[in-house]
Amino acid sequence: MRKTILGREIPDQLDGIELKPFAGAFAARPSGTRAAPPVKCRLPGEAKCLPDLDAVFTKVGLKSGMTLSFHHHFRNGDMLMNQVIAAAAKRGIKDLRIAASSIFPVHAPLVEFIRSGVITRIDSDYVSGPVAEAVSSGLLPRAAVFRTHGGRARAIECGDLHIDVAFIAAPSADAYGNINGVTGETACGSLGYAFPDADYADQVVAVTDNLQPYPLTPISISQERVGWVVELEKIGDPNGIVSGTTKVTKDPVQLLIAQNAAKAIAASGLLQNGFSLQTGAGGASLAAAAFIAEMMREKHVVGSFIMGGITGLLVKMLEEGLFKRILDVQDFDLEAVRSVRENPAHEEVGACLYASPFNSGCIVNQLDCAILGATEIDTDFNVNVLTGSAGAIMGGSGGHSDAAAGAKMTIITANLTRSRIAVIKDRVRTICTPGETVDVLVTEWGIAVNPRRTDLLERFTKAKLPVHSIEKLREKAERLCGKARPIPEGERIVGIVEYRDGTIIDVVRARA
Amino acid sequence: MRKTILGREIPDQLDGIELKPFAGAFAARPSGTRAAPPVKCRLPGEAKCLPDLDAVFTKVGLKSGMTLSFHHHFRNGDMLMNQVIAAAAKRGIKDLRIAASSIFPVHAPLVEFIRSGVITRIDSDYVSGPVAEAVSSGLLPRAAVFRTHGGRARAIECGDLHIDVAFIAAPSADAYGNINGVTGETACGSLGYAFPDADYADQVVAVTDNLQPYPLTPISISQERVGWVVELEKIGDPNGIVSGTTKVTKDPVQLLIAQNAAKAIAASGLLQNGFSLQTGAGGASLAAAAFIAEMMREKHVVGSFIMGGITGLLVKMLEEGLFKRILDVQDFDLEAVRSVRENPAHEEVGACLYASPFNSGCIVNQLDCAILGATEIDTDFNVNVLTGSAGAIMGGSGGHSDAAAGAKMTIITANLTRSRIAVIKDRVRTICTPGETVDVLVTEWGIAVNPRRTDLLERFTKAKLPVHSIEKLREKAERLCGKARPIPEGERIVGIVEYRDGTIIDVVRARA
Repeated sequence: MRKTILGREIPDQLDGIELKPFAGAFAARPSGTRAAPPVKCRLPGEAKCLPDLDAVFTKVGLKSGMTLSFHHHFRNGDMLMNQVIAAAAKRGIKDLRIAASSIFPVHAPLVEFIRSGVITRIDSDYVSGPVAEAVSSGLLPRAAVFRTHGGRARAIECGDLHIDVAFIAAPSADAYGNINGVTGETACGSLGYAFPDADYADQVVAVTDNLQPYPLTPISISQERVGWVVELEKIGDPNGIVSGTTKVTKDPVQLLIAQNAAKAIAASGLLQNGFSLQTGAGGASLAAAAFIAEMMREKHVVGSFIMGGITGLLVKMLEEGLFKRILDVQDFDLEAVRSVRENPAHEEVGACLYASPFNSGCIVNQLDCAILGATEIDTDFNVNVLTGSAGAIMGGSGGHSDAAAGAKMTIITANLTRSRIAVIKDRVRTICTPGETVDVLVTEWGIAVNPRRTDLLERFTKAKLPVHSIEKLREKAERLCGKARPIPEGERIVGIVEYRDGTIIDVVRARA
Repeated sequence: MRKTILGREIPDQLDGIELKPFAGAFAARPSGTRAAPPVKCRLPGEAKCLPDLDAVFTKVGLKSGMTLSFHHHFRNGDMLMNQVIAAAAKRGIKDLRIAASSIFPVHAPLVEFIRSGVITRIDSDYVSGPVAEAVSSGLLPRAAVFRTHGGRARAIECGDLHIDVAFIAAPSADAYGNINGVTGETACGSLGYAFPDADYADQVVAVTDNLQPYPLTPISISQERVGWVVELEKIGDPNGIVSGTTKVTKDPVQLLIAQNAAKAIAASGLLQNGFSLQTGAGGASLAAAAFIAEMMREKHVVGSFIMGGITGLLVKMLEEGLFKRILDVQDFDLEAVRSVRENPAHEEVGACLYASPFNSGCIVNQLDCAILGATEIDTDFNVNVLTGSAGAIMGGSGGHSDAAAGAKMTIITANLTRSRIAVIKDRVRTICTPGETVDVLVTEWGIAVNPRRTDLLERFTKAKLPVHSIEKLREKAERLCGKARPIPEGERIVGIVEYRDGTIIDVVRARA
């Protein structure tokens, strides 16, 4: 056992793999070279279209023990991963690692395949629903690996996450493997999270329900990288990309939080021409965006770009001229899909470009402000977005840690209490995003500033914002709902939480 | 010495590098993995803009013996390569290898740097003007390496051509290294030939005369790969991209050849919906394209895509609806630049995607027809586009061998005699494109079909095209201008001609 710089105990190794404890958000430096997949060759006249998944498995030489990757641009509307795993199981394949950028409730059928040993490992950036419960309860024989979106891209590009076969759900594809997500009946918009998979997997399979004449354009992922194309009846339901939380909240408490966040931005000095912003797609984040838009109109500020999961509200801000660009790694509603298809100022970007810490510079490095959520935050500003306070897995970082690390000012918005549980803890159950990358906590009861940011504290105080120490806010929350009794955790590690640089920032243990 | 399958003698090794003799256009198969450049890291807040080339050299650690790469999208209007080499020479740098996708007369100042030992090696796909003369005369201490556009991309992607520092002339760039060629006063259109350099060079420098606010879009080459940005007063003259040969010829002989080429396409059976075409930018090629357009209108044929160097004439065919897409690796006039900027059906593609034989399938593999030129062609249909019949270097393959290898039908258009020299030889001086990938020769005196293509011979005969054996056409030419006396060549090898797969198809020797 070794300790991270934040005091968490990390085993020296797990399942035969050496774990490096987290040493600070910007402490790790890369060495070595990028992943180098096998060079391919395709002669003129050779075709790529195959009749079904079984034929694909034969061509790619699918074997037990392999790592299969999937993207999550259909979110809870994805229909591909379940089909692929079911077909692999039918062939008698076992011991698969699933490298899925996210896993949703729709993937409930995978639980049965975990139970039967078809799936023995999961690497993901976000897991919710029955698969999350299965991982929490220790059903997987090996610990799941939780990464950030930027960390997953880095792990693939740097060779730490080796993918044998990438399955790419393609809303449109041509028979020679050019793909995009912006056309077709199941258009889901950006395919950015699948870019590293396509670039570095040993084998790449495009799975589409919309085969188009050659050449399909725009080309998001190109024929250079796609070895095989297969048509299925249905790969996804684009309505599933809309999660329940992509509308501006009407809840007065959330609106109050959003307004406080907007005021914090106004006071920060960042709201000037060229301002850049990433928001989550939660109701409070979107409400904050709406308040920010209002301020930008008033002050005649024109922002440079919006990043993050894109929704119709952000598209409106682009179209109104409040921002000059949207850089889009993922779309959260159909208005966003329309915009990335039609508007040249709305640019699709890949996951490495978005958030990998180990290239010549990712987009989050250029963010002025990120507005993010939290399941828990502690008095050191460490944030948990992976586990509930009882320890159950119910989400993941996604781009949380990435945006926090990159942005000049990272704001966490959270209700001080949620279901009678205080959001501020002495110690979060699981650290996902280190406190050194979190600058401000905004709640309905006031704003706390990370003591490292004396500059912001001064500005906020001058602007007469309701600033309190985070300890003060924690006390307030505890007065409201009492101090939560710590829920003991078991010994067995069911998940490891990898920071974006590849070090281990925490582990998730099974319940006691 | 070993012999290629075409009988050319190739030394076992040259300058310490083992040479593999050409064994057939589709004989070589890749092994190994893609090039793996060092992983980078850029922390938030770190800037990339540097004041001048000297500061760039310091940052990238420029040293004697390095390989510097350049793209040729400005063609004879390029102003970057001369500036970079002059600045390097000023620092006392020696023994550089110049990996330039093409070299033009405008690069005449490099000759002095060859003479003084600043430049000792040249790898290029096309060299004309004073640098070509210098190479021919043996001024370089090591043999120049001539590749095809697809072969250069392959060599970079597969690690055979290792680039220390790529200098990318960027008509527009932002301060964090996003680049495109479609905006700005010096817009040159597609930057496709620079894509592999950006992806695989150890260090990437964007040099621009048009620094734009972050984030620049569209992003052709992204900040992920660009380490440094420097602004110079001028990087290129976009008028220089227009070579003298991008207008439809008015020469009656050339028009006759073009018409014969169009008739051959009509007779081939390929001119159906979905037809795809690559033409050179020479006057006869363009005239052929105009005749093809006429036939497509008459027959109500809608083609799938046009590839190759793009001109306004091809843009008009897209806009008229004769073709559905242009896939664009390079623009040859300002109309093409406008189109790739404005028309979503006109897509920029990189050199690997265009033509590398060693990936999951390049675009030339999807060509129905390629119409290409020739300096010489022999009775085995081998084509020389590199040296004049006296042996002087005056061009190079560019995409010639790539398109020929990929297309279902490759047509060479050539005047039977040129400056009183017969274009058809018993044996071309230098083999660039092997005869097995050339199907048809079209001249003003008739059409010759490669005997391998009995299917085409039958179709052309049935269509009453003026078909002759290539030997017959050669005799005709020799009757017109006499048999050329073979011009002896010296011993010393001044250039090696690498086929797209990395094998050596021929060598260029200094004059006797």
